[in-house]
Amino acid sequence: MKRRDFIKATGVGVAGATIAAPAIAQSSPDIKWRMTCSWPKSLDTLYGGAELMAKAVGEATDNKFQIQVFAAGEIVPALQVVDAVQNATVEMGHTASYYYFGKDPTFAFGTSVAFGPNSRANQGWYTLGGGKEVLNEFYKNYNVISLLAGQTTCQMGGWFRKEINTVDDLKGLKFRIGGFPGRVLQKLGAVPQQIAAGDIYPALEKGTIDAAEWVGPYDDEKLGFYKVAPHYYYPGWWEGGAILLAFINLDKWNSLPKSYQAILEQAGHYANTWMTAKYDLVNPPALKRLLAAGTKLHGFSPAIMEACFKAAKELHEEISSTNASFKKVYDSLNAYTNPAYQWFQVAELAYDSFMARHLRA
Amino acid sequence: MKRRDFIKATGVGVAGATIAAPAIAQSSPDIKWRMTCSWPKSLDTLYGGAELMAKAVGEATDNKFQIQVFAAGEIVPALQVVDAVQNATVEMGHTASYYYFGKDPTFAFGTSVAFGPNSRANQGWYTLGGGKEVLNEFYKNYNVISLLAGQTTCQMGGWFRKEINTVDDLKGLKFRIGGFPGRVLQKLGAVPQQIAAGDIYPALEKGTIDAAEWVGPYDDEKLGFYKVAPHYYYPGWWEGGAILLAFINLDKWNSLPKSYQAILEQAGHYANTWMTAKYDLVNPPALKRLLAAGTKLHGFSPAIMEACFKAAKELHEEISSTNASFKKVYDSLNAYTNPAYQWFQVAELAYDSFMARHLRA
Repeated sequence: MKRRDFIKATGVGVAGATIAAPAIAQSSPDIKWRMTCSWPKSLDTLYGGAELMAKAVGEATDNKFQIQVFAAGEIVPALQVVDAVQNATVEMGHTASYYYFGKDPTFAFGTSVAFGPNSRANQGWYTLGGGKEVLNEFYKNYNVISLLAGQTTCQMGGWFRKEINTVDDLKGLKFRIGGFPGRVLQKLGAVPQQIAAGDIYPALEKGTIDAAEWVGPYDDEKLGFYKVAPHYYYPGWWEGGAILLAFINLDKWNSLPKSYQAILEQAGHYANTWMTAKYDLVNPPALKRLLAAGTKLHGFSPAIMEACFKAAKELHEEISSTNASFKKVYDSLNAYTNPAYQWFQVAELAYDSFMARHLRA
Repeated sequence: MKRRDFIKATGVGVAGATIAAPAIAQSSPDIKWRMTCSWPKSLDTLYGGAELMAKAVGEATDNKFQIQVFAAGEIVPALQVVDAVQNATVEMGHTASYYYFGKDPTFAFGTSVAFGPNSRANQGWYTLGGGKEVLNEFYKNYNVISLLAGQTTCQMGGWFRKEINTVDDLKGLKFRIGGFPGRVLQKLGAVPQQIAAGDIYPALEKGTIDAAEWVGPYDDEKLGFYKVAPHYYYPGWWEGGAILLAFINLDKWNSLPKSYQAILEQAGHYANTWMTAKYDLVNPPALKRLLAAGTKLHGFSPAIMEACFKAAKELHEEISSTNASFKKVYDSLNAYTNPAYQWFQVAELAYDSFMARHLRA
């Protein structure tokens, strides 16, 4: 579809002069948008969250503001969502910001960085810790604005065809890993591959790659990795609390009535709570099914964790020294999340440890 | 104010026949509601969350749907919010459901029960685990409906004038504790007191009570307890992840356009994420200030934790055996949260433990 046709197809702008409806309707114009996702429809967690956000906007506006959701590949490929929004091919998209680290590593912070905050601290930073503001200042360079729109909770470390016991086992490992954190593994000799969800399984099956991580038990089960790579590691230290953002073309955003902007933002928060709840509902039974199917569960060894931690800190400091945007966002993240993490060690940790012991018993 | 005056003062209903505006406006009628809170204005976490929810509704509706927020005591006392909503003295309220356990202990689940889920599992259960449905079925008996509207995260165990070292030290202890969990302490010989926020300090100062818990460092500091009770215990095992609900009079709820219902629900989710983020922002520095002011931080001893756990389980089973509503909601809660808790022990725990160790170093 050409841009001109697209504008015709997706409805009116908000300039009063072009609308024939009575004055009272101008604050709630009929608008149709398209949202392209990085997810296949089969992933009812990630794609389901985008759908829920669109549905919530429709419900809040009596369907005056309609957002049609598209799966990866329907309009643009999975890893070109930000480009499509920037160019106004679509008005908005639902994706993981860190996929776009090739443009600038600062994109990583819109999802997660290695050994970054857990889910609660990450969404807290974005919501109230200045995260939204510093990220949107950065995203402005790409003519997009972001809204919180979901999260995956702490991810698993992925599926390996062979056991990974030592830091040396990472050398030469062809590992599908999402976004910027692959550069940490690169420091340790691994060969990170960025591959969209739908293309991972065949690569892993053929042995084109040695390992692949996606999200966690429920999503990973759907993508079938356990059939060809039996060793399932935890934790996904590069996605300790990955958030997902909706990106909106800045001109399209600015053309919205303030009420629709507020509705979009609140719908994104709703999708965020929903997606967290969904993962916690579906991951536990999925993990049981995977174990029953022969999956071997392993924690990464302390030596591997420590080596990756050291490599991540070095990488983040190297980039901070030459990239002012990266440094600004990283400093903002640490200022909110480090004290939060220390606070979690008091009541939260004591409570969770006690409860975990009793639930095991 | 009499009921008739109140109806006049708080604006129109939604029946189309009484509105002179054009047809297009009927789906977005002008509505003014009042929301009464259990919180004093000084608590910008709890009262702030209620305000944010009201503000979000205003922004999403171009201020066509206005909710005026009232602090505890301005319309009705702090612990009579549900009554005021039930009787339509106000259209809605922001409170802790467990304050109303005297009507029926099932009210406890709308906030937290002793040794219940942590924050994430509790909000997940409410949002997607069937919690909202089973609770609202119960609340229907009181002519109210609930929406998620905030949470406190894991609370602290409160302020004690003397150290509490053994289970025997609980005997005869006059302890201000919120809601239903006081009945657990009662089993161990303590004398629970339900006192609204504004009245706790004078009671603790005079020694009318021996101990008091409220929420956590930031709120507790504002209420001044550290000045008269130096021993600060953790965790608040009766509020491992307390959620807060907005209650709405059922007739008022049913009279709303569907779009306003959706907006209210989404605004509540926004308030929930915001309140979590706010607590994690303000609690860490508050705890540091309290420690600098001489507060003595203690974990409850394992023996006390175990005795309380046992008493809580007994109490919940006793009530389940005679109260079908309680059993139904408790079973629903456990069905969602127990597997979620087990899942947290894999990636989340491994990640958080590693990060905590490094942040301490």
